[in-house]
This record gives sequence, structure tokens and C-alpha cells, in this order.
Amino acid sequence: MSRDAEHPDLDVALPTEGQVAPHPQTIDLEDMALGDDYALNPDFVAMVVDAADRGDAERLRELLAALHPADVADLMGFLSAGDREEVLAHLDPEALADILSELDPEIREELLELLPPEILAKALGEMESDDAVDVVEDLEDDMRVQVLAAMPEGERTAIETSLAYEEETAGRLMQREVVWAPQFWNVGQTIDRFLTDSEDMPELFFDIYVVDPSHKPVGGIPLSHLLRAPRETPLAQIMEPLTEIPVEMDQEEVAYIFNKYHLISAPVIEPGGRLVGQITVDDIVGVIQEESEADILALAGVSDAGRDAGVFGIVRSRLPWLILNLVTETVAVSVIGVFQDAIAKVIALAVLMPIVSSLGGNAGTQALTVAVRALSSRELNSANARRIVIRELVVGLFNGLALALVMGLAVYAFYHDDRLAWTMGLAIIANLFVASLAGILAPIVLERFGRDPAVSSSVLVTFATDFMGFLALLGIASLILL
Amino acid sequence: MSRDAEHPDLDVALPTEGQVAPHPQTIDLEDMALGDDYALNPDFVAMVVDAADRGDAERLRELLAALHPADVADLMGFLSAGDREEVLAHLDPEALADILSELDPEIREELLELLPPEILAKALGEMESDDAVDVVEDLEDDMRVQVLAAMPEGERTAIETSLAYEEETAGRLMQREVVWAPQFWNVGQTIDRFLTDSEDMPELFFDIYVVDPSHKPVGGIPLSHLLRAPRETPLAQIMEPLTEIPVEMDQEEVAYIFNKYHLISAPVIEPGGRLVGQITVDDIVGVIQEESEADILALAGVSDAGRDAGVFGIVRSRLPWLILNLVTETVAVSVIGVFQDAIAKVIALAVLMPIVSSLGGNAGTQALTVAVRALSSRELNSANARRIVIRELVVGLFNGLALALVMGLAVYAFYHDDRLAWTMGLAIIANLFVASLAGILAPIVLERFGRDPAVSSSVLVTFATDFMGFLALLGIASLILL
Repeated sequence: MSRDAEHPDLDVALPTEGQVAPHPQTIDLEDMALGDDYALNPDFVAMVVDAADRGDAERLRELLAALHPADVADLMGFLSAGDREEVLAHLDPEALADILSELDPEIREELLELLPPEILAKALGEMESDDAVDVVEDLEDDMRVQVLAAMPEGERTAIETSLAYEEETAGRLMQREVVWAPQFWNVGQTIDRFLTDSEDMPELFFDIYVVDPSHKPVGGIPLSHLLRAPRETPLAQIMEPLTEIPVEMDQEEVAYIFNKYHLISAPVIEPGGRLVGQITVDDIVGVIQEESEADILALAGVSDAGRDAGVFGIVRSRLPWLILNLVTETVAVSVIGVFQDAIAKVIALAVLMPIVSSLGGNAGTQALTVAVRALSSRELNSANARRIVIRELVVGLFNGLALALVMGLAVYAFYHDDRLAWTMGLAIIANLFVASLAGILAPIVLERFGRDPAVSSSVLVTFATDFMGFLALLGIASLILL
Repeated sequence: MSRDAEHPDLDVALPTEGQVAPHPQTIDLEDMALGDDYALNPDFVAMVVDAADRGDAERLRELLAALHPADVADLMGFLSAGDREEVLAHLDPEALADILSELDPEIREELLELLPPEILAKALGEMESDDAVDVVEDLEDDMRVQVLAAMPEGERTAIETSLAYEEETAGRLMQREVVWAPQFWNVGQTIDRFLTDSEDMPELFFDIYVVDPSHKPVGGIPLSHLLRAPRETPLAQIMEPLTEIPVEMDQEEVAYIFNKYHLISAPVIEPGGRLVGQITVDDIVGVIQEESEADILALAGVSDAGRDAGVFGIVRSRLPWLILNLVTETVAVSVIGVFQDAIAKVIALAVLMPIVSSLGGNAGTQALTVAVRALSSRELNSANARRIVIRELVVGLFNGLALALVMGLAVYAFYHDDRLAWTMGLAIIANLFVASLAGILAPIVLERFGRDPAVSSSVLVTFATDFMGFLALLGIASLILL
């Protein structure tokens, strides 16, 4: 869990009676730091830039104090590399710990190189284990060795154990800090333990896991249920069945389960069944957003270059897709080359050709996007795939008929040529059908072969609809027009 | 909060010592109900269909008992209308309550029409207020009146009050059940209250809100902190600043705040500042997924027809976008008509034309998608817009140069015509620049005018790149080739 969950201190609520009122100056800064939309206020950013440029340490500290760690992380994205370094110098290890886990990965990598190993080791000690691992895996090899060496034995071992799990699995996502109680305890014993043994516990938690003598979880108790049960109630009586997460489970799978069963936290178990950690919903919110962003970007044929990538980083994330598009499109237009004579005779074909391929491309993208979404939310699977494919094809035929009618009439009205109108109509019907077929089958087939359907489907579908668009129009024209 | 959070009972953990072991037959069913990927097992669905078709009530109840409510809701999606009705008849009000809030909206509407008002009123009484409101707003007017009339006074008023808030605002999202304590209480008093006064409280909660005498929240205490504080500690001493959510805030805004500050729950306040409810993170997970799905679908030019929409529903969700595409594409190709003579002279232009527009379309979609994503995560705003627009244009120029070089050489190799190669190269550079410009500016401008950038940007960008693709190639050809 992110340590920031402890600091939900965006002061929308201002007059907090019973607390020491902050300095009026600070209130003003907090008020102006964020705009109405909770994004950083450009004027506030300008003030930070100004203070950093002037090297005004006191002013900088004052400005930073007005921000939630998540907002400081955001702020970094608006600063130049030099100003970032200046800001970094004015953060204590605890603030640094909070901010590091919020930072954009690109900026974090840059900042990590600037930090002395001992300071970083201290900041890592302040984090929950999942956040610390997240940072350590970003370090260069030699820096990692130095930082780990500077950490206390226990923390180092915890991080090294987590790093042994594969990326994007439950093992990486979990925090090792977890609250458990033996199954023979009662509510009173459990509550008393919280007052005496709070050193080893996570700062925030929501469920207690009841374990058997071999440390396997046998049930879970939400804190709000524990609080309401009489002290002498045995835990075994109020515990509820658990959804256990195997340590090697893929994070996308974990997110699916959290979302489906509305979990707030879940125990993570080793292959033998022993409790080794927990995953909390606030980490899952991040995963859900990552995964859906990955889908959006993949469908558009662009890799994530990161918010602060330079021009070259962005070019590298896009040019390969454009080159691939160039290759497939070149193959598709080779069809046109074959029918050059037809075009030379009826030049209107050159005008109408892009309409057929564009409509096909759009219809294919529609079918494809809906299919990718349905696959990732598991609404589309082997139990209903056949029904959904057939439904798509019927939709493709119907849309094709409707568009063919509209466009056929338009072509007739403009060119007064009924054979050209028929050619156009039939080509649209053919291409919309191919678009539906490719749009629904490409992602299903890719998924079945273990590929990410969002990544390569677009290329396949666009190729199919462009190729077919040209072939249908020019082929039908050769048959009935010439 | 969804009532299902109480039932995290997907039995991955089987032998729960200390609990009564379920009947062996049931274990087998639970084991086989879900596949390895936690989706429903097609064989299990077939068993349900079979039992429903035979009207075998006992078998049906046995099968349904093996499923989590979320899985029963999923199951409904795989059944015919007749089988759904059969399954519905075998659910008691409590199970019904759990399942209704999980169902796909299309199916829910259909099932709600089949339920007698008294049964539905009873099921609504079992739900938390936010889930109940969600169902009631789906009811036909006359059914709504009947159902509300059949509910106890208090529950009816709660639902009617919530319905008064606008859709997709915090007011609709919140549950009215909330745990609060006066600011002069101490920890002991607060904990004791949970044992005596648990009737009015939500089943599950994570934070206690401390309120002043006018019922305005002044601080929050996570349960895990409350449990660890000595009994005599005043609440005011351990409470933390809160992020308050105004009741009229848009749900997308709420999701942004939850995600940014890693909140688990947050108090909802009326315009005067009084505490009126709370929003919990599990409701937000749903909102985040809804919003990102909406973005994905909007970018592909398709409305969400729902998983179980019929052919006509799907056609209605797609055909309008295709017709719009037809219109814009027809305008774009009118450029080709103007240059018919050029094509008639150099037929290779008809072959190369689609490559220029396709490359532009792809590059535009890339820039657009990245911009839409950055806008919705607020990484792109007025503080850095200028820098990002300039960066996009440089990227567009660079990609244009690279692709122009590749394609210019290819054209020369194939056609042995250096002027045609220059024409192609220059057209690609021009169109890639326009693609970058349109791709980054369209979403920014739309957002500034208060429109959803995901919805109409694609149409604008595709139009711009197609139009420019044709114009650049044919126009340059007329100048230097003819």
C-alpha cells in the first residue's frame, strides 16, 4: 500500500477546530496551490520555479509544505531538471519516501541518480515494502548494491525476497506487512494485541487474517466487524471465507478479482498455502488504470513514452508503428496497381476508392475495440464467442446495406451512372462484412494464441479493410463496369 | 458501497477448519464453476441451462448456491431470457439484492420488469442506499411508484433524497450510511458505541468521521488507528485532515481525487458543509473502469451498446458514427475530384494517395490518443500545453522526414522517377505535420470548450489527415510533376 494513504490531507476542509490552526500564510498557499479541478495551479508552479531559480530555500520549503506528496510529485513534472534538483535538496527522508512512490517513472529514474545512497536507504526504510521494491527495481545495478548495503538487515531481506518474484505479479504488488491472528484467539485477545504489538504492523489495514498453526489463512475479519463483536467471541465464529491470491498471479488477474468481488484487501499465499503478504485495493486502482491506459495506447498503435519523454523518446515510441503501417499499406495499395487500367478508364474510381476503405477501417475499428474491451472484462469468452461472432457479422451486413444504400444513391445523383452506383454499393457491403469479420476474429484469435489482442489487432484489421476496400471496388468495377 | 463487499467468498481456499465443511457435492460444484481465469466455466453454464430448461428447481438452487453473487450476475449474461426468468424465481430477496447491483444494466432492466413490486421493495431494503438508488433509477415510472410505496418510510425517503442529486455526481455515488462521532468523545466511548448502536451503521466501513456540533466533519480516523490508540485518547488528538467531497461533484472528479490521494473512503458534504454520506473506494473502482471504457469506445467512434444488446442496438450504436465518417470522407475526397486530370496523367498517384492519407491518419491517431490520455490524467494542462504542442510538432516533423526518406527511396526504386519520389516525400512530410497539429490541438481545444475530447477528436483528426493527404500529394504533383 502506498504510504500516502496515511496523508489524505488535501485541505479542502479548512477550519479544523480542535487542531492547531496553521499559519495564515500557509493557508493561503494551500488554497491557491490547486485549481478548481484539483490540478496544480500554474501560478503556484511559477512561484516554485521562481523560488528554485533564486535558490530561496526558505520560500521553497514553505511552498512545498503547502502540498500533498502526490502534488509535489505532479509538480516535478512541470519543472526543469535543474529546478527538480533544487526541490529535491529541500525534502527530508520522510517526505522523500512519500513522494518517490508517486513520481512519474521517467522523473523518478532521473532523481534517483541524484540521491546519495544513505539518504535513499533511509527513505526506503520509511516506505511500505511494496513501494520500496518499486523504487529499488528502478535503480542501476551498482547503486542498488550500495543502497541495499546501507539498509538494516531485515528491510534488506524483505526487499530482496520481493524482487525475486516476477514483475507484474501479485508478489511484486503485495506488501509483506500484514495483520494476522491464530484461529483459537477471541476478539478481545486480538484487539489487545493491537495496543501492544503495533511495531510490526502496517500503518493502515482493513482486514485481519485468521491463520491455522501452519500459517495458512483460514478466514478474514473486516475491522468494522471485529469492532462490533463482543470481546469473548472466538475469531473462528465471525471470520468469513477469503479470496486468496497466489503469489505468482498476474497483476491483471488480481485486478479483475478485486473488481469483480469488490475486495478491499486480500491475503497473498505462497505455493504451499502459507500467508506471505496482502494486497490492498488502493494498489489495484493503479493497476486498473495502467492496464486500461495500455489498452488505449496499444489500440492507437503507440507505446507509452512517458509524460516527460524527450522528442527522441516519443519518436522511438511511434515511428516503428508508422513504418509497420507503411509496409502493410504498401502491400494493400499494390491491389490498385493491378487495376490501374480500370482507374485510367473511370477516373471516378480513384475518388470513390478512399471512401470504401475508410468506411471499412472505421467499422473494423469499432468491432475490434468492442471485442478487445469485452475480452479484457471477460464478457467475451469461449462460452459465448460463437454467438458474438455471428452477431457481429449480422451487424456488419446490416450496416453495409444501410451505407451502400446511402452511398449508392449519392453516387447515382452525382455521376448519373447506375452501374457505378451498383459497383460502389456492392463494394461497401463486401468491405463492411470483411471489416466485421476481421474486427471480431483478429482479437479472439490473437488472445487464443496468448498474444495481447490490443497490440496487433489494429494493424491486421486496417490492412484487411484497406486491401479489401481497394479489391472490392476495383474488382467489381472490372466485372460490371468495363 | 456494494453490499457484496461482505461476501468475498470465492472459495479458492477450500478446507476451512473451524467452519462446518460444506457438502462434498457443493465443493465439487464450486470447484468447477469457475475456470482458471476466474471466468465462468462453459460446462457449468451448460449445467445451469440444462437444469433451467428441465425446470429442475432443486438442481438449480444447488448450482446457484455454488456461485458468488457477482458470478450469478455474470451467468445471467450467458442465459436466454427464458432461462433467466427461471433462475430469477429461485433467488431469495437477500441473494436478489446482492445480484441486482452486479448485473449488466441491459439485463437488469429486463429482469426488473419481471419482479413483483413487493419482492423488489424487500430486496432494495437489503441494499446499501447507493446500490438501491442505482436500481430504482432504472425502473419505469409506474413501477418506481409502486416499489417505493411498498418500502418502509425511512428507506423510501433516503432513496428519494438521493434521486434528487444529478446523475454521475458524488450525491448519487455516496451511501448515506456513515459512521461519525462528536469531536469531544474519546477512543473508548467511540468503540463502545459500536457494540450498542450497530443497527444504523453500514455493514462495512473503514474510517470514522469526527464532526463538530453543526455536523460538519472536522477530521477522520482510520479504524486501524482507532484500534491502536489507548481508550482515553481524545478523538481530536488522533484525527487527521480530511478530503471532503461536495455532494454535487462530478464522479470523474471524485475518481481522480481518490486515485491521486489513495483514499479508501471520503466524507460527502452538503453545500453548507454538513456531513451527508460517504463514498468508498470500491465504488470508485467501478467509476474508473467506466470512464476509461468510455474513453476507449469514444476514440473508436462507437457508443456502448452493452454486452447483451441485440443486433439493432449495436447497429444504432455504430451506424451514426459511420454515416458521419461517410460525410467527412466524402468532403475529403472532393479534393481528388479537383485533381482528376493529374491522376489521369500519372496513374501512380492513385496508387500512392492512400499511403499518404493512411500514414497521416495513423500519426494523427497516435498524437490524439496520447493527448486524450494526458488530458484525462491531467498531465496535460494550461501550465505545460505550449511545451507539449511544440514537442508534438517537432515529433511530427521528424517522423515525417524519416517516412519521407523511406518512401521516397521506395518510390524511386519502383517507378524510376525522381520527381514522383520528391512529390511523395514532400506530401508525407506535409501530412505528418498536419497530423501532429490536428492530433494535439483538437483534443485541447475541445476540452477548453467544455466538450469531451475523446468523443469528437477522432472525426476531426481523420478528416484533417485525409483531406490534407489528398491535397498535399495531388497539389504538389500538379506543381512539380505536370
